[in-house]
Amino acid sequence: MSDFIKTRAAFHLPRGVTYLDGNSLGPMPVAARDRVARMMAAEWSEMLIGGWNRAGWYAQPRTVGDRVARLIGAGPGEVVMGDTLSIKVFQALSAALALRPDRRVILSDSGNFPSDLYVAQGLARAMGATLRVVAPEEVEAALDDSVAVMMLTEVDYRTGRLHDMAALTARAHAAGALAIWDLAHSAGAVDVDLTGADADFAVGCTYKYLNGGPGAPAFIWTHPRHADDAQPILQGWMGHAAPFAFDPEYRPAPGIERMRVGTPPVIAMTALEAALDVWEGVSLSDLRARSIELTQAFIAGVEAECPGLVLNSPRDPARRGSQVGFCHPQGFAVMQALIAAGVVGDFRAPDVLRFGFAPLYNDLEDVNRAVSILARILRDGSWDHDDYHRKAAVT
Amino acid sequence: MSDFIKTRAAFHLPRGVTYLDGNSLGPMPVAARDRVARMMAAEWSEMLIGGWNRAGWYAQPRTVGDRVARLIGAGPGEVVMGDTLSIKVFQALSAALALRPDRRVILSDSGNFPSDLYVAQGLARAMGATLRVVAPEEVEAALDDSVAVMMLTEVDYRTGRLHDMAALTARAHAAGALAIWDLAHSAGAVDVDLTGADADFAVGCTYKYLNGGPGAPAFIWTHPRHADDAQPILQGWMGHAAPFAFDPEYRPAPGIERMRVGTPPVIAMTALEAALDVWEGVSLSDLRARSIELTQAFIAGVEAECPGLVLNSPRDPARRGSQVGFCHPQGFAVMQALIAAGVVGDFRAPDVLRFGFAPLYNDLEDVNRAVSILARILRDGSWDHDDYHRKAAVT
Repeated sequence: MSDFIKTRAAFHLPRGVTYLDGNSLGPMPVAARDRVARMMAAEWSEMLIGGWNRAGWYAQPRTVGDRVARLIGAGPGEVVMGDTLSIKVFQALSAALALRPDRRVILSDSGNFPSDLYVAQGLARAMGATLRVVAPEEVEAALDDSVAVMMLTEVDYRTGRLHDMAALTARAHAAGALAIWDLAHSAGAVDVDLTGADADFAVGCTYKYLNGGPGAPAFIWTHPRHADDAQPILQGWMGHAAPFAFDPEYRPAPGIERMRVGTPPVIAMTALEAALDVWEGVSLSDLRARSIELTQAFIAGVEAECPGLVLNSPRDPARRGSQVGFCHPQGFAVMQALIAAGVVGDFRAPDVLRFGFAPLYNDLEDVNRAVSILARILRDGSWDHDDYHRKAAVT
Repeated sequence: MSDFIKTRAAFHLPRGVTYLDGNSLGPMPVAARDRVARMMAAEWSEMLIGGWNRAGWYAQPRTVGDRVARLIGAGPGEVVMGDTLSIKVFQALSAALALRPDRRVILSDSGNFPSDLYVAQGLARAMGATLRVVAPEEVEAALDDSVAVMMLTEVDYRTGRLHDMAALTARAHAAGALAIWDLAHSAGAVDVDLTGADADFAVGCTYKYLNGGPGAPAFIWTHPRHADDAQPILQGWMGHAAPFAFDPEYRPAPGIERMRVGTPPVIAMTALEAALDVWEGVSLSDLRARSIELTQAFIAGVEAECPGLVLNSPRDPARRGSQVGFCHPQGFAVMQALIAAGVVGDFRAPDVLRFGFAPLYNDLEDVNRAVSILARILRDGSWDHDDYHRKAAVT
């Protein structure tokens, strides 16, 4: 059994705060600060340009990628880090479209994160493709023989709804389409199994449940069957077969390394390394069990003690990621009151209170505290002050 | 007169090392380590998700962009930071092509950094454009009415040759083309004046002469006349007019902010902020004068004391950036010996010894030491040992 008391102790959690917003930004692993300071003093300062080899910076996107791979059911050598999630979506999508040249439809759903849709819109404009967006429950029916790529986010950022990755991927393949999965709200939250699901591409970020820090590097995975054929239109020198030959013609590196683009962000990657240390020894089945324990307890507690809140997430834990949403007509003000009282979740328009549960550091005490403070706020009506209404909506 | 003794003191330069490779990776500003540690402890740790507003993370790409703007002759509100240089090349190029829909040729030169050419090749494949690469001295003659975009790196990464940005931009405009300038080896090295040159787009990195750290964020500038029309095909939520409306349709933000894509790398941006502090009070004309003083002295010293080395950079300082190359048939081994003796430059195949001079921290003592050690190595033949030949070529 994974030791979640130990993993909780690995994080800096501010005194008096119950943090249920790790699905937006994970807290800082205690070791990250010293790790970064050491990298700056011992590597950047002292090795200067030599750090690319001597300190392993050049290989970091792959060595760190191998550590992320275990958390998403991928093999070693199948994942590289870099850039941001939107950019990795762009690469995966352009590569997938090029692998299905006779088809021009990108199928996605309205539960996808908007940035993924924006990326698809921009790419579709350039490549003469069409983005078709349907409701999450209509994806399966929309998979016809015009669809080149099905691009979905596994866990809905608002509701926590968890798609059945294996079933939808099989359906996409049966229709002759490829499947791209965005794991933004999955990696580190649920027991992702890309290999088992036989997906084609996957992308994700590391600043949510993986706790890599604000703007931490993204990751991209290509199934080995495509890794030597996938050609993203966004190609840079670090993805060249021989980057230091300074060849005027691009020749993609074998395998996943071709998904590298420019110079990797070493300082950020170092913070992420410290964050990944906390994952050592954590099993994905324990992670999933713990996540379900926390979200079930929260739903039960809120429904028992907080009349007026309506569940906005699937009730069946098998269909839910590691977050829970509740609707309230004054959701924004309620969330501001909750944050002021030390329980940090977030708000998504028009009326959703969103709570993320990170098994690595959240526990049942967090759940109980959140429920009781939320109940008190609703009982008191203490959210109903101008003060909360004046605050900015951006978090 | 800018105080280069003070700016030199702002850097950590390892004892016994004469660092002439700041054109690859700038050294660490002393203040960067504490700045990053403080950001991690006071902002990420304590503010958690609230840091995006309270600590100014969300605005950083623009606030930091304003500080870079001054160093490249751009105005406030015209530059944003983020991603890597290759990605910013991709955005500028796709936006420029879309502004010239009737033309499909991208003109570049063989002195451009390969990654820029790779980016252009990938984009050309997707957008049905053609990349035409000519010798640097043939660019002007190649500007015909098929050219949509002229994309050049101002300072050649191997030779230090400096293009005449204003003259070539005027020539491009006369031919009906747009001009994109890559400032990788210009920003912080020469007195760039984008506004004066009337350029259309510019991009650059901050880990060379700007000393932002390995993999520090890139920048992009759009001339205000294009800023509200430029539509890069790579578009993400941070460049949306209302990112937190979670609108399913992309609507570009007004101005340069549309060039933002995903979540910005806050830790890296913080190190860069410390690096930009060193630039406060430094005038670009002093910078240029100091750079010319250093490169002229180095050329004179080497030519006087190091027979067998052949200058591989323009002799006229008006046509040279802040680096100097010399050819030697055993260039690789000579550079290894030089590095072993504490003078760090780098090697570019097939035979170029490359030396960057950063006015902020290099001085005439560095020049003299480099010349005398290089002279000794060549005199002794102490580079001619198997030892140096065995070392890896990647730096």
